[in-house]
Amino acid sequence: MSNKLLQATDVASGSFSLLLMAMVVTTLLLIIGTAWVSKRWKLPVTLAGMVTLIGAMHYFHSSMVWFDAQQITIIYRYIDWQISMPLQVMALYFFIGTISQPPVGLFWRLLIVSILMVLARYLGDVNLMHPTLGFLIGLVGWLYVLGEVFFGRLSEINSNSGNEIIQRGFFWLRLIVTIGWALYPLVYFISRFAGGVEGPKLSIVYNLADLINQIGFGLAILTVAVKDSAYSSR
Amino acid sequence: MSNKLLQATDVASGSFSLLLMAMVVTTLLLIIGTAWVSKRWKLPVTLAGMVTLIGAMHYFHSSMVWFDAQQITIIYRYIDWQISMPLQVMALYFFIGTISQPPVGLFWRLLIVSILMVLARYLGDVNLMHPTLGFLIGLVGWLYVLGEVFFGRLSEINSNSGNEIIQRGFFWLRLIVTIGWALYPLVYFISRFAGGVEGPKLSIVYNLADLINQIGFGLAILTVAVKDSAYSSR
Amino acid sequence: MSNKLLQATDVASGSFSLLLMAMVVTTLLLIIGTAWVSKRWKLPVTLAGMVTLIGAMHYFHSSMVWFDAQQITIIYRYIDWQISMPLQVMALYFFIGTISQPPVGLFWRLLIVSILMVLARYLGDVNLMHPTLGFLIGLVGWLYVLGEVFFGRLSEINSNSGNEIIQRGFFWLRLIVTIGWALYPLVYFISRFAGGVEGPKLSIVYNLADLINQIGFGLAILTVAVKDSAYSSR
Amino acid sequence: MSNKLLQATDVASGSFSLLLMAMVVTTLLLIIGTAWVSKRWKLPVTLAGMVTLIGAMHYFHSSMVWFDAQQITIIYRYIDWQISMPLQVMALYFFIGTISQPPVGLFWRLLIVSILMVLARYLGDVNLMHPTLGFLIGLVGWLYVLGEVFFGRLSEINSNSGNEIIQRGFFWLRLIVTIGWALYPLVYFISRFAGGVEGPKLSIVYNLADLINQIGFGLAILTVAVKDSAYSSR
Amino acid sequence: MSNKLLQATDVASGSFSLLLMAMVVTTLLLIIGTAWVSKRWKLPVTLAGMVTLIGAMHYFHSSMVWFDAQQITIIYRYIDWQISMPLQVMALYFFIGTISQPPVGLFWRLLIVSILMVLARYLGDVNLMHPTLGFLIGLVGWLYVLGEVFFGRLSEINSNSGNEIIQRGFFWLRLIVTIGWALYPLVYFISRFAGGVEGPKLSIVYNLADLINQIGFGLAILTVAVKDSAYSSR
Repeated sequence: MSNKLLQATDVASGSFSLLLMAMVVTTLLLIIGTAWVSKRWKLPVTLAGMVTLIGAMHYFHSSMVWFDAQQITIIYRYIDWQISMPLQVMALYFFIGTISQPPVGLFWRLLIVSILMVLARYLGDVNLMHPTLGFLIGLVGWLYVLGEVFFGRLSEINSNSGNEIIQRGFFWLRLIVTIGWALYPLVYFISRFAGGVEGPKLSIVYNLADLINQIGFGLAILTVAVKDSAYSSR
Repeated sequence: MSNKLLQATDVASGSFSLLLMAMVVTTLLLIIGTAWVSKRWKLPVTLAGMVTLIGAMHYFHSSMVWFDAQQITIIYRYIDWQISMPLQVMALYFFIGTISQPPVGLFWRLLIVSILMVLARYLGDVNLMHPTLGFLIGLVGWLYVLGEVFFGRLSEINSNSGNEIIQRGFFWLRLIVTIGWALYPLVYFISRFAGGVEGPKLSIVYNLADLINQIGFGLAILTVAVKDSAYSSR
Repeated sequence: MSNKLLQATDVASGSFSLLLMAMVVTTLLLIIGTAWVSKRWKLPVTLAGMVTLIGAMHYFHSSMVWFDAQQITIIYRYIDWQISMPLQVMALYFFIGTISQPPVGLFWRLLIVSILMVLARYLGDVNLMHPTLGFLIGLVGWLYVLGEVFFGRLSEINSNSGNEIIQRGFFWLRLIVTIGWALYPLVYFISRFAGGVEGPKLSIVYNLADLINQIGFGLAILTVAVKDSAYSSR
Repeated sequence: MSNKLLQATDVASGSFSLLLMAMVVTTLLLIIGTAWVSKRWKLPVTLAGMVTLIGAMHYFHSSMVWFDAQQITIIYRYIDWQISMPLQVMALYFFIGTISQPPVGLFWRLLIVSILMVLARYLGDVNLMHPTLGFLIGLVGWLYVLGEVFFGRLSEINSNSGNEIIQRGFFWLRLIVTIGWALYPLVYFISRFAGGVEGPKLSIVYNLADLINQIGFGLAILTVAVKDSAYSSR
Repeated sequence: MSNKLLQATDVASGSFSLLLMAMVVTTLLLIIGTAWVSKRWKLPVTLAGMVTLIGAMHYFHSSMVWFDAQQITIIYRYIDWQISMPLQVMALYFFIGTISQPPVGLFWRLLIVSILMVLARYLGDVNLMHPTLGFLIGLVGWLYVLGEVFFGRLSEINSNSGNEIIQRGFFWLRLIVTIGWALYPLVYFISRFAGGVEGPKLSIVYNLADLINQIGFGLAILTVAVKDSAYSSR
């Protein structure tokens, strides 16, 4: 938000404003939505709302910077990811936890791995760590999360649940952490030469990715929660 | 909001302030109002409140720009429409969903069409796409939404509901997406020569249009929801 | 709110800060208070809270301007009145509606007349319309509202209600729309020569008027609502 | 709040930040706390929260001014007292009202006297009224409030209540309006020569006084309310 | 939050933004979480949320200063600790209070000692008191709190409770006030030569410490509260 007059064709600036508004609205919708779901769904929905709240604060901050400098550095996105990605992994854990409680050890492994995944990637990207090493640690962390989600205990509980609403939701959430999350390093790789600085085109792509990965993720959880709450109380 | 002293006769600036205040008040009224309606009405009323929340953020941003530059570019309005118009179509879908659940496929068609409708219109308006093409895509999208609302499944469920309160509400909501939404391209066409820049008179017209299309839309849904909640619980 | 150091004797600036704080506190009290009253009282109390919310936003904006320019133009007050006065008339309508539903047509007449009343007065005051004409339309609109409130359907329902708590409340609310509202044009008339610009003394008088007309109005409704809710549930 | 770098030894600026944070936290605690107390305690607790909300807004405003000018004028405090002191007197009235309703006439006398008490003191302090006269009116008002609280109807209802929790609470609240409130004129008298301008030391003393008089007052009411709610529902 | 463009490698600035976002999210999660726990857990969870709210306000303020000056003085942290540490001690007291009420005298001793502990340490650190004296008073205060928590009445109630969920939670909370709180004076000692001014590395360490001591503390309380509420209502 700024009092500068935007060009009508300034799509990049527009996309920052758009994402800020969309994040705020989704956050409020998810928080209000916690009142519509049954008790065991409140935590996953709230965590999804915290993810978009992080997004809202991130876009509030970075849109101010963008409007002023017409460019932005990768650190703003990493601050967001450093909190939102572990929060999303925790949301997945508690999503499955609505069926039956997965092991507590798994919770801690997922939490720590997802924190390290983002941290290593950041340190590599800005050359505070050897870039290849950072990339590899980040990759291994991501593969570990995918492994747990596709072949580990979470997947097992999901398969055995016999709850179709949850299974379909888990399918979409898994898709987001697979394809959606792949987008970030991919985009970064392609734009490597930019030295950690985003120009307009790159920003538009990242912003669209957040639209799916954070807002889509949250709305998917809310939808499952509302449907399953209605189904279970029947 | 700005600390500049307005001229007493500066109606355009005043209308930005007025819309900001009206949007904030309506948003809060709709959010508080979700507590007054029965369970199945909570989603449509909340979505209507999200529409005016988008409006509130839009007017907060654009009134800052306006107070500073005494003009504003069309991109600010498109950022609002890009979220608020699909939200309103979704509100219509879930409005009818309080009677009986329309097909899920329809939901996705309406969502995607309404997003593309606004996007194409924007790209055409600022010459990032061939203007006539953008206009036509936007027109087709709008006609599709009207078709579903007047002759499609939504209209059918409404007619068969036998619920007079909802039918009268749907009549007004339909009117808004027909006549109210027609205003935006109409006004834009007339003011075409301005090159995407709004002067005072154009702003006043657009702001009045939002007063009806967003605030009126929301209050209509709340009214129906409160009345129908009282009726159904009798 | 500003970081300028006020003179200890600067009563006018102080009164802007005072009103801002009082409006915020009253708004919050009324919103919290909606939880203390029975279902049918929630709407009138919420509307009263929306009136003071408009006041809060108005004083937030105008105190910033005032602190900067040490004067303020009449347009800031009209933006407030354009929303708050119709809202107050609607609050009166729904206040009586807690006894029994007045005709819907009356609702629309009161709403439209009160909007036009403020609009005409504004256009007259800033010479966008012939001043005498604007004044007369404003006067007629105000007399119409008073007529409905003192001799029309609202008054009738009130008289026949046999509910002393509501009747005493309605007495005070009527007094405010009669004497309290008379203050605004009166003050304006006296200060006519100032050309729509408020100096310190005029601002203090207007601010005191808002203290009674908006805050007093809201607290009166809350008091009636709380007392009647306790009485009815006995 | 400001982006200036404070000296590590700047205790006065620190005390403004401290009070702002403490007021915000207490306000939120009291508002959340209204959900923990029985119905008749909601109003006194809410009023106590409104007192600290006034404090929060006051410290938000005056800390901005202080950070900028390193001094502050007495008017900022009077704006706070003009609302918070009558609110506290009302809180005392409704505190006793949880036992049994005191006369309504007493409510109005206490309200008007406490408003005039602060107003006269302000006018005297800044020489808009004869200082001695202002001081005397303020003193008489204060003594009247103390009279009602120690020897009047409020005290009588308290003594006859046989409710030890409330009696102990009333003892502390009375202490605050006696000794705590005495601090303000005392401090002002001592610092008279400063001409209504506060330097660092004076600010620290005033801020500490607010810590007890507003925050302590609110927490005392919440404590009594929570304990009495638990006791009564046993 | 600032509109300056950060370097991609500016880890220190990034850590201020990160902490701000994490504090806001944790605060909201804890406040929302009060709705998920049984009545007697509401106060401890709310107090934990107030601790992170203090943290959020602190990081909002200090990140603005940091972004501007690239350094920060120790006073900002002491303002936070002056409120948050006593609040955490109170949270411990009421945490044990969910089993059975500890003596009221203990409450006051803990409150006063923890306030003096922070105050003395501050006065010593900035040479407003003899540094060794300030350090010693701070140390004694801290040891007193540890004594009560490990060997005093709180520990005793905890041991006798037979409630494993609470006992495991108390173990972690004790660990934080022992090891976590030790970090602050330790770090300060090591960086003594900096004269109360934090450079980038020091800030990162302090910020990480807050992540554990305030956010970890709050989440630990929420976890215990949710689990024990589910267990007790079975």
